[in-house]
Amino acid sequence: MPMRIVGLRHTDGSVHVGTLTDDGRQVGVLTGLAEFWAEPRRWLAGEPDSAQMAAVLPLDEVEFVPPVLPGARVICIGLNYLKHVAEGSYASEGVPRHPTLFARWPSSLTVGGVGIPVPPDEDGVDWEGEVVAWVGDTLVDATPDKALAAVVGYSAFNDVTSRRAQKLTSQWTLGKNGDRSGPLGPLVPAAVVGDLRDGLTVETRVNGTMVQQGRTDEMVYTVGDTLSLISRTLTLRPGDLLATGTPSGVGYSRTPPWLLRPGDEVEVVVERLGVLRNPVVANQARHERPGSGASV
Amino acid sequence: MPMRIVGLRHTDGSVHVGTLTDDGRQVGVLTGLAEFWAEPRRWLAGEPDSAQMAAVLPLDEVEFVPPVLPGARVICIGLNYLKHVAEGSYASEGVPRHPTLFARWPSSLTVGGVGIPVPPDEDGVDWEGEVVAWVGDTLVDATPDKALAAVVGYSAFNDVTSRRAQKLTSQWTLGKNGDRSGPLGPLVPAAVVGDLRDGLTVETRVNGTMVQQGRTDEMVYTVGDTLSLISRTLTLRPGDLLATGTPSGVGYSRTPPWLLRPGDEVEVVVERLGVLRNPVVANQARHERPGSGASV
Repeated sequence: MPMRIVGLRHTDGSVHVGTLTDDGRQVGVLTGLAEFWAEPRRWLAGEPDSAQMAAVLPLDEVEFVPPVLPGARVICIGLNYLKHVAEGSYASEGVPRHPTLFARWPSSLTVGGVGIPVPPDEDGVDWEGEVVAWVGDTLVDATPDKALAAVVGYSAFNDVTSRRAQKLTSQWTLGKNGDRSGPLGPLVPAAVVGDLRDGLTVETRVNGTMVQQGRTDEMVYTVGDTLSLISRTLTLRPGDLLATGTPSGVGYSRTPPWLLRPGDEVEVVVERLGVLRNPVVANQARHERPGSGASV
Repeated sequence: MPMRIVGLRHTDGSVHVGTLTDDGRQVGVLTGLAEFWAEPRRWLAGEPDSAQMAAVLPLDEVEFVPPVLPGARVICIGLNYLKHVAEGSYASEGVPRHPTLFARWPSSLTVGGVGIPVPPDEDGVDWEGEVVAWVGDTLVDATPDKALAAVVGYSAFNDVTSRRAQKLTSQWTLGKNGDRSGPLGPLVPAAVVGDLRDGLTVETRVNGTMVQQGRTDEMVYTVGDTLSLISRTLTLRPGDLLATGTPSGVGYSRTPPWLLRPGDEVEVVVERLGVLRNPVVANQARHERPGSGASV
């Protein structure tokens, strides 16, 4: 079992980074969140032995959060699989010539197991299973090769979308930043995962039914090319994330549309990255527990 | 002179919040950034006396940063003044029925005086003078009245834009998040500013020449209505910001286009909020000092 990096929130609000044990029943505390992202390669270099762990805790004693810096950028590619371009509301415009980039704030992220609320103006929320790449170096005007070499890990991700809010205007931001709408799985080191161009399978299941199935070698825009482009406007920093886009099979473009409603369960399963499973809950959950499930 | 709240970065990276003295030559340190946003009304209630200040420092001993939490959302309205809608590339679509919201990450923000770099693929960068509203309460499914009452302060803002990156695809994110592209002035308490519907003048000047002049009572979407809409998808938190959009007169839609180039100086002047002045610098500055001028 490869190293799986998780975030742990303490009762005082501080966040540490840890690694799940092979049996998935314990977590070894490695270091603070800022310290991890100051030297990510050091912490990802190999399976830590117990002497490097500040503590080993049973899972029921910790609150998991994404190991994401509050000030990180979550940069998402909107249209990166040809069949997804063809099924969506931008189909008539053809394949865009550049990666369509939109923003998530880290406060929209959460982890597996946490309920995803359906906001009050939505008939439901839509699934978008995908892979996230984690940046480990500072990148300014970087070449594609240098940008790809800066990726230190990958995670499974569900870019859960409030379609009505997304389509309210030309800009998708609101519909992509609902409370606890972005479940993110543990970070698996890039050295273990290899290259997305190898073609990892990305699948999404709703209540056990397969709804999306793609391979990462179908992407139009590679991680290296996209990070290189971004770095020519904004400086990428260790801890920034690139969500690489979803394959075809989302719910809103089906006939009839199929959206996630309270009581449903959605899973994203990515080869070498594991299973990310979340229940969907009613809007009332936003009132009972306002805000994010993230580390911010 | 009203209270003007600023952020101060220490050499160890920690950020405090302070207030400028009337003569603008000293700054009184109030509290830590997280502590300020845990109780913003307490700190904004009145002019602090010197006993409440942890220290009073001359300006040349501090590094100013925006008093923005790293995990805050900077939510921006794209088309909120009729004449700006009419001058831009969305003119043929008419006035949108809902506020067009896009995202800035806090790491794109900076303060007055800091050089704004022109990224390598841009002919220049474009000005967008505007007003930012600061959220002081948690808002979930809030009414417009409640949302407006949650605003604790306002600042002058320059939403400097990399037009080529903005127009590369349907989504504006990349062009709105260039390094040090979002200068933000001091926070002035809402109790002093009053209501934007009073009509504050918003002006932008380039090398002393007036290029934009509008009044905040011309906005199509009010602060209260917009924050209310947002809160029906994502929970707003103390420290989140709403940039309220720019009047007509931006550079790219002129004949011929007029963009800011290295050596230019751009000023945003907002009634009751003050002057925000920044030089424009070459891309080389991104290599000499990578990343943000913000508190993240």
